[in-house]
Amino acid sequence: MYGWIGKILRVNLSDGTIGKEALKIDDMHNFIGARGLGTKIFYDEVDPQVDPLSPENKIIFMTGPLTGTLASSGGRYNVVTKGVLNGTIAASNSGGAFGPELKYAGYDGIIFEGKANKPVYLWINNDTVELRSAEDLWGKTVPETTDILKETTNDEAKVACIGPAGEKLVKFACIMNDYNRAAGRSGVGAVMGFKNLKAVAVRGTQGVKVADVSGFMNAINDARSKLKAHPVTGAGLAAYGTNVLVNILNVHGGLPVNNFSEAAVFPQAEKISGEFQAENNLVRNKGCFGCSIGCGRVSKNKGKYKAIGEGPEYEATWGFGSDIGVDDFEAICKANFLCNELGMDAISLPTTIACATEMLEKGIIPRDRSEMTWGDADTMVELTRMTAYREGFGDELAEGSYRLAESYGHPEFSMTAKKQELPAYDPRGQQGIGLNYATSNRGGCHVRGYMTAPEVLGIPIKADPDATEGKPELLKIFQDLTAVVDSAGLCLFITFGIGLPEIAEQYRTATGVDISDEDLLKAGDRIWTLEKLFNLKAGFTKADDTLPTRLLTEPMKGGPHQGMVVNLDAMVPVYYNIRGWDEDGVPTEDKLAELGLS
Amino acid sequence: MYGWIGKILRVNLSDGTIGKEALKIDDMHNFIGARGLGTKIFYDEVDPQVDPLSPENKIIFMTGPLTGTLASSGGRYNVVTKGVLNGTIAASNSGGAFGPELKYAGYDGIIFEGKANKPVYLWINNDTVELRSAEDLWGKTVPETTDILKETTNDEAKVACIGPAGEKLVKFACIMNDYNRAAGRSGVGAVMGFKNLKAVAVRGTQGVKVADVSGFMNAINDARSKLKAHPVTGAGLAAYGTNVLVNILNVHGGLPVNNFSEAAVFPQAEKISGEFQAENNLVRNKGCFGCSIGCGRVSKNKGKYKAIGEGPEYEATWGFGSDIGVDDFEAICKANFLCNELGMDAISLPTTIACATEMLEKGIIPRDRSEMTWGDADTMVELTRMTAYREGFGDELAEGSYRLAESYGHPEFSMTAKKQELPAYDPRGQQGIGLNYATSNRGGCHVRGYMTAPEVLGIPIKADPDATEGKPELLKIFQDLTAVVDSAGLCLFITFGIGLPEIAEQYRTATGVDISDEDLLKAGDRIWTLEKLFNLKAGFTKADDTLPTRLLTEPMKGGPHQGMVVNLDAMVPVYYNIRGWDEDGVPTEDKLAELGLS
Repeated sequence: MYGWIGKILRVNLSDGTIGKEALKIDDMHNFIGARGLGTKIFYDEVDPQVDPLSPENKIIFMTGPLTGTLASSGGRYNVVTKGVLNGTIAASNSGGAFGPELKYAGYDGIIFEGKANKPVYLWINNDTVELRSAEDLWGKTVPETTDILKETTNDEAKVACIGPAGEKLVKFACIMNDYNRAAGRSGVGAVMGFKNLKAVAVRGTQGVKVADVSGFMNAINDARSKLKAHPVTGAGLAAYGTNVLVNILNVHGGLPVNNFSEAAVFPQAEKISGEFQAENNLVRNKGCFGCSIGCGRVSKNKGKYKAIGEGPEYEATWGFGSDIGVDDFEAICKANFLCNELGMDAISLPTTIACATEMLEKGIIPRDRSEMTWGDADTMVELTRMTAYREGFGDELAEGSYRLAESYGHPEFSMTAKKQELPAYDPRGQQGIGLNYATSNRGGCHVRGYMTAPEVLGIPIKADPDATEGKPELLKIFQDLTAVVDSAGLCLFITFGIGLPEIAEQYRTATGVDISDEDLLKAGDRIWTLEKLFNLKAGFTKADDTLPTRLLTEPMKGGPHQGMVVNLDAMVPVYYNIRGWDEDGVPTEDKLAELGLS
Repeated sequence: MYGWIGKILRVNLSDGTIGKEALKIDDMHNFIGARGLGTKIFYDEVDPQVDPLSPENKIIFMTGPLTGTLASSGGRYNVVTKGVLNGTIAASNSGGAFGPELKYAGYDGIIFEGKANKPVYLWINNDTVELRSAEDLWGKTVPETTDILKETTNDEAKVACIGPAGEKLVKFACIMNDYNRAAGRSGVGAVMGFKNLKAVAVRGTQGVKVADVSGFMNAINDARSKLKAHPVTGAGLAAYGTNVLVNILNVHGGLPVNNFSEAAVFPQAEKISGEFQAENNLVRNKGCFGCSIGCGRVSKNKGKYKAIGEGPEYEATWGFGSDIGVDDFEAICKANFLCNELGMDAISLPTTIACATEMLEKGIIPRDRSEMTWGDADTMVELTRMTAYREGFGDELAEGSYRLAESYGHPEFSMTAKKQELPAYDPRGQQGIGLNYATSNRGGCHVRGYMTAPEVLGIPIKADPDATEGKPELLKIFQDLTAVVDSAGLCLFITFGIGLPEIAEQYRTATGVDISDEDLLKAGDRIWTLEKLFNLKAGFTKADDTLPTRLLTEPMKGGPHQGMVVNLDAMVPVYYNIRGWDEDGVPTEDKLAELGLS
């Protein structure tokens, strides 16, 4: 077996049994790995109608065939489950070194099923796999848990765990690995918390075999050279991290302000930009396993929020920044550090605070619930902590913006798609990203078809952001390619510098699977469609492929895209048609047959 | 260059200059490395009369030619300076992975001279070496400092640093590396503290070349096989750690109780034994870089001192245990964890508390200074913390037992040799260890000629512990061989399983130096004699080669060695003679010529 290990762990938390199973060859070839293969296994085993917080829900950690190889940025794994935040199929993706270590221990992935009676963690030491008590770890933060587990098991062990937020079933709790990397979205951490699964610690000392060693070395050298030569992957991300986007999106007029209620232009953007960070707070950049890009940030606060930590990424900077009207970069860093330490999604948490702030300012949420106002950095930091522990108003925030806004009778203030919070791009300034948000199989998300690349950055070509024509076609390619990248175990950021040919060549030489570029991209289509089938069976319909009313009806108040709304109606039917779905967004029998899903 | 890198860093803390210098070939051949070569450089550059706490004192971090190679247990480095505790030549030895990393960065060692105006740390990233501000690190514990530096510099960086104790110039402050490994004795941490040098962080990605690869592989495989086959290095130390000695020394009648004031038999020994630890507190064993023995302990407290940490070693278990009459193993662990976190020698600190306790019990130290009594575990733990911060009575303890006892007019209660606290073997039960303590060039110490091996453990042969005949001869061989082992960069524990031939073969094949076993042992003699020359020039005389009066005059009160005292007079003159020293313990001209030291 090349690329893949061919083996998966099955851990039943209810009865404590641990089994090792062979993966199915056909599934590996058809669904690649990680997000795709994890989804296939999940789809085959779990009723889409299951309550996410029930023993019948499962949670699958899955790597891809390029995870742990020398492929640049090949350090990723996915967590597949039915998401707590919105009940869609969740595949949360993370970097660091946990995924490679799992493969080096001899497993492509782990299926967790059932629910433990008491807190446990899984310790994987190559062939030896055991569930151990985590009663002493319950309540501990992510760094505390990680430190203790490394000390208890092996200094070189890699740890994925939940923090207090996951234990408290915060709806957007994430799973943290290697201290600061997050399988961030959909509330996958709450599934672990519900199952009483505090952590997975793994130590592996074996290797990953590739089929054609010299061919693979050529392929990865070609890919690494191109990544190095590209200004984004070779220089920009290393220098400024993802926060390079703050000024870019602000100039573009797409940086949402105050819960998307203002023009997407933030006057103080410079103070929260990657350039500001590099000059004032940056300690160093940091790469995940095998990464030649190194977008990660180590940041340092010098003032009253004195601390050293990782991040913030652009999304968190925006969420804790302009989306709440905050321009204190150290407060943003502090809130982000808290998200890492306590285990919360640094998109959904701040945007839920933004939603609450708007409703507080409008008097819809009574003032006795919170003193939060636009730009109040200190209260924002405190609310972050309170949410993880569900203290006071934090208990309401912990439910996410949709449930919060709905509980006060005004769901329209929740800037979500399928109840998951939207990220840092106002779709009224980018029609394509609007379609992306509306059709993403896990709800509001930018990394399921990152239309900002063509619409703002001009990668691979500059598309008119205000146009709807051609966007469905472009989006489908982006969605399918992203599914391939995620499933192979690579990082999406490589697609700034390389494309399908380079990715396919790495895949072929690593796995020995003889597949054309087109057929590999078709696997992405297959994965996307399977995710859609899950959601349809879970009860999602065409009516859910939409955006908040504000973005569809309230014209942008200023900036380059003044007057624009998202014209979804012009794009969704075309998109369905291109996908081979009927007018209700249901895949046709022909399409399913073409993909081998019928 | 093979084995050695051939290059040393010179860092002047006063003016901030950093230079790279070639090592002298002759010095490398004559003094091997680490302890020996560091001492040679120190001896050539520093006036032995220097005040240890002055800018004129230097501190040298030095590895050996086998450090960082595949030799089993070849992960060690030495810190050479004039010791703060007693003014002897100090060479404190530590494991972990710091030493290898320094070599991988391209340096055999570092010479620090002068004194920084403000706290700094040295960051070595292969070729790039810089002094950086450590003002944010001042006051931080060892794990805090290490975590921050790894986050700030490189996740794979190895860190050696001082804790609050070093900053506060505690006379027995140590230098900690890799969180829990200590260059423990002589107060080397206070030298760093005085110099405002908080830490050294190093990342190296180069290798160490060996001269004869296949010969070296044969040599290390032979050594590793023998270490694996020996019951002590292959099984005992992994299972019970050094605490396997608690029961052994207790049965032998050599486990000191209550500051050596009672028979060296502790009735509750079982409760602080390695066997008890393995059953109740042990999480796992742990090896240093490249070690096939794995004596390290990760221990866990479950009761009121709930914590996870490393150790305790036998010495600390005894010091915080029977030497203070304490039989609460979790309190011992806690006090040991505090020593690691705050950076204190876990021999000198507890034995200073033992000395203070005896003087408190006798009314010599007034009761208003401390409520400490024999067996008071809680106060012991609190005094440990207070000493690091020099709070209250801790400020007196921080001076070490000799200065403490002398300040109350009764130095005889200090169980020290050359003002350094004796370790865990009552010499009235082992004449040879008495001679070892009295003649050790750094004062009270067991790892400068570990006579417990022959006198108690029967390695390599069982010597009658009560006899004085033959002990000087045996001790000289042990001292010289230990100097070779320390200087090569190996761990002393290998000498339980292998001897001079195996060590010499590893040295020859690694370095390519054609030297006989005998001449290598002679290098040990040369190193020992050079240390002696330093001490003579520093003002030490024959009168200092002695033991506390108690051990020379108060017969052992019970146990197998009841009635014994140490008969130093029968051994010291013979020892001097065998060493080629005159009756005053001064090396003769002939001896110096023989060793090339004249």
